[in-house]
Amino acid sequence: MNQPQAGLRHSIVLRRRPDGMPSMADFEMVQEPIPTPAMGEVVTRTLYLSIDPYMRGRLSDRKSYATPVQIGEAVTGETVGEVVASADPGFAVGDIAVGGRGWQSHVLSKAAALTRIPKGDAPLSTYLGVLGMPGVTAYSGMTDIGQAKEGETVLISAASGAVGSVAGQIAKRAGAHVVGIAGGPDKCLFVQERLGFDACIDHRSMDLGAAIADACPRGVDVYFENVGGAVQQAAFASMNMFGRIIMCGMVAQYNDAEFPPGPNLGFMVAKRVRMQGLLVFDKPERFAEWRTLAAPWVADGSLAYRETIIDGLERAPDALAMVLGGDNFGKMIVRVASL
Amino acid sequence: MNQPQAGLRHSIVLRRRPDGMPSMADFEMVQEPIPTPAMGEVVTRTLYLSIDPYMRGRLSDRKSYATPVQIGEAVTGETVGEVVASADPGFAVGDIAVGGRGWQSHVLSKAAALTRIPKGDAPLSTYLGVLGMPGVTAYSGMTDIGQAKEGETVLISAASGAVGSVAGQIAKRAGAHVVGIAGGPDKCLFVQERLGFDACIDHRSMDLGAAIADACPRGVDVYFENVGGAVQQAAFASMNMFGRIIMCGMVAQYNDAEFPPGPNLGFMVAKRVRMQGLLVFDKPERFAEWRTLAAPWVADGSLAYRETIIDGLERAPDALAMVLGGDNFGKMIVRVASL
Repeated sequence: MNQPQAGLRHSIVLRRRPDGMPSMADFEMVQEPIPTPAMGEVVTRTLYLSIDPYMRGRLSDRKSYATPVQIGEAVTGETVGEVVASADPGFAVGDIAVGGRGWQSHVLSKAAALTRIPKGDAPLSTYLGVLGMPGVTAYSGMTDIGQAKEGETVLISAASGAVGSVAGQIAKRAGAHVVGIAGGPDKCLFVQERLGFDACIDHRSMDLGAAIADACPRGVDVYFENVGGAVQQAAFASMNMFGRIIMCGMVAQYNDAEFPPGPNLGFMVAKRVRMQGLLVFDKPERFAEWRTLAAPWVADGSLAYRETIIDGLERAPDALAMVLGGDNFGKMIVRVASL
Repeated sequence: MNQPQAGLRHSIVLRRRPDGMPSMADFEMVQEPIPTPAMGEVVTRTLYLSIDPYMRGRLSDRKSYATPVQIGEAVTGETVGEVVASADPGFAVGDIAVGGRGWQSHVLSKAAALTRIPKGDAPLSTYLGVLGMPGVTAYSGMTDIGQAKEGETVLISAASGAVGSVAGQIAKRAGAHVVGIAGGPDKCLFVQERLGFDACIDHRSMDLGAAIADACPRGVDVYFENVGGAVQQAAFASMNMFGRIIMCGMVAQYNDAEFPPGPNLGFMVAKRVRMQGLLVFDKPERFAEWRTLAAPWVADGSLAYRETIIDGLERAPDALAMVLGGDNFGKMIVRVASL
């Protein structure tokens, strides 16, 4: 890919639809003049770009809840940016805002699609992670579907990730016994020591079912599903009567052209389990709720989070491949420019 | 099996756990004196015995929501019976009651486990079908999980069966577009002509997915699951955004020693579907509600139902095999004795 040049807008656009794991060759960088906002629009200079598993879905033309990214179009993604031009009374040059989607150095947005965030409160990158879309996803999932009660057992896959790490800490605050599943000893150590989960299972365990049974002696009341595959199979087999399953994501299959079969669903009837799919944008009011609730916890350090930040817009495709392969650690963020 | 003798209590007990489809040889009839009720107990003479798919589960020692039937123990089942001896002030000889479970000519029950039913109101057999457990199952499923709204599309498997036939008629009353799935042209004709569904698909269709798409041009908002297998796969693929799936039963697999894999669950996330398991006894208050609501509809003929009644307690195992094989038509009932 070309190197970015100063004074231009750089965008990473889709060159062709990836076959399996996305690679650099599926994208290209295009350069063009920085756009001028029309009435009601704002241009932000991107500081941080969020990289999330769901983006893989947008690169396929498979039917989904969202329109896929078109060939030649910039890839979608949340950003935190600084307002550099505004034709809307709600935003002034120098304001910091989150929203306005795209793998771009400068994003032209409708003002209504942006939320101004306070400077100097929490680190700006947290508005893409613990205080942003992944944090709100965890909060919505636990509030609207999981509803873990004191003494219940909550099992969370991708527990060191941006969503799982927050979901588990919310469940701990509710008084639940919280068990994570993560990839490898470093992540498991982080989940137990830093996030304060009661236990963490390495998903590379020989016998995942036995490991879950061991860590969840009273079975599983709430399962927060982020991965699919063998982990899903083992987790479903551990569900208690009247359990709840939050279907948030199935990252294990996002690169698959054909989706594999799932677990047999007899347990849903026998145990009267409730399973529900989640998209954070279905309840937009949860964003403000969560930021109000969690910003003090970020400030006082009682809500732990971890970010992996890499520098340079041109590395966004690499960052996505890391997320899909489980090679990131915590919330994956690309730093596009400095304030 | 022995033929029943007058003056004795006959019970069909489990002789061995069936391997696959249950057969006569898995059961035996035992004869013994008719029991005498202790304080708070009642003995009823069985008039009608209900045969339901769930009974297959009780014959296995697989872990389930209910304790399995033990070898040598009478098989469980709802009955309508006439009180022949009572040691409880709530019941008099000659009363008719529903409840008291067992494949038996005479059932000894706690009075609290029986519900008296009015004589000469609706046919007594309906208290095992349209006004009984299957009817209440349909009502609970549609009320607590399905919640079909006017203009939505509701798809119902085993549509001519005791549960499906009621579920679809409830959905029609709510103003939904209702499509059934049933086995063969006779059942499909009944579902459309007699039950008033908008369409019915023969599950032996070459392309079930295409048949569903054709009958449900706006997709499926509510799916009432009674069967599992290929029908489940095709139905799930037709779900709309924010759809609801009532997991009531999966009769297609009840004879299997090993359960087959299920559909991939990516659609649950992409479409934010809610799927929930149902057992009618979880909300016992629904029984009285449904009887109050539906008895007038049975009386005025606006709630259609169909029963297959066979005579003789000794034929209960055959009746169960018919239900599991889809060879019954409507609610399966064994007439054990006449009033």
